[in-house]
Amino acid sequence: MAKSIRIAVVERDRERAMLIVDGLREAGDYEISVIGDERGLSRRLKELNPDVVLADLENPSRDVLEEMALASGPLDRPVAMFVDRTDDQLTKAAIEAGVSAYIVDGLRKERIKPILDAAVARFHMFARMRAELAATKAALAERKTIDRAKGFLMKARGVSEDEAYALLRRTAMDQGKKVAEVAQALITAAELLK
Amino acid sequence: MAKSIRIAVVERDRERAMLIVDGLREAGDYEISVIGDERGLSRRLKELNPDVVLADLENPSRDVLEEMALASGPLDRPVAMFVDRTDDQLTKAAIEAGVSAYIVDGLRKERIKPILDAAVARFHMFARMRAELAATKAALAERKTIDRAKGFLMKARGVSEDEAYALLRRTAMDQGKKVAEVAQALITAAELLK
Repeated sequence: MAKSIRIAVVERDRERAMLIVDGLREAGDYEISVIGDERGLSRRLKELNPDVVLADLENPSRDVLEEMALASGPLDRPVAMFVDRTDDQLTKAAIEAGVSAYIVDGLRKERIKPILDAAVARFHMFARMRAELAATKAALAERKTIDRAKGFLMKARGVSEDEAYALLRRTAMDQGKKVAEVAQALITAAELLK
Repeated sequence: MAKSIRIAVVERDRERAMLIVDGLREAGDYEISVIGDERGLSRRLKELNPDVVLADLENPSRDVLEEMALASGPLDRPVAMFVDRTDDQLTKAAIEAGVSAYIVDGLRKERIKPILDAAVARFHMFARMRAELAATKAALAERKTIDRAKGFLMKARGVSEDEAYALLRRTAMDQGKKVAEVAQALITAAELLK
């Protein structure tokens, strides 16, 4: 890779932080920032905007784990979370919060690289699926909006379906908008005026 | 849990299989089957229909890994895959094949339980998302089909949009079918006859 990957390591314990940084330095060309204080984590990560977050929580409570998971921005970037102990509820909470890799008792130098690779691969797979779902939902919502607007025009102006659609499309082109936007504006207006 | 979880352990090496089975027995109430020969794995798993697959591959080639991942049915059940060594391409291939947990050098008794928990949680999260995507895509496709059928009826019978929809709906009710099915039948017929 031409550009080195930027990793934010979230770790309170200085010694463990050193261990992680050592492991990363050995494993590849990473640009590493260590965050030793998790207060303001979300804001700090927004500034750093790392490619990956590696968070070590040792033995978290459920509240701490969920807070950390969310503050790490698991929908914006891969988050690999290391804990020393867990239970099934804690594991489930981490996964459902969107953590890309949740590793128990696995903080050993030689394991960090494959875990990061897995977190990145999983994040991208999940992100693709989220994008596809969002696009499909948007297409369905647009279609419904356009249908409603067409129906409204057909009734209000006594035109056919094709003519109603042509009207929406012409207006959209004139205003440099999307057909769905014009349709939404029409529905909003119709609801205000009825 | 009332019912014990059924786990299929895929492992060629008898000694490693024993280690895994021991770890599982200590960790919880599992019903364990060991598959020592991965030939016919897909068929064997169809018979067993386990809740989870735990596959140990030691040091797989990419071909072996992908074959095993697919044969494990990663869309039907959580698959946790253990390897001794990996590289980033192999890791990516495993994740993209749908493996719910991909663990490098982690086959230690006390780690098996949290890894299985994570695999199950991840599988369910992914399955929910796949189901939502499939449902949204189906809704969009149905809407398009119904729109086309309405347009066809409006032209062929000179009726309004509402009347066209009412016709489709009445036919669907009469035949005990979904509106989208009747719409699809109409489009198929229209294409055959044109």
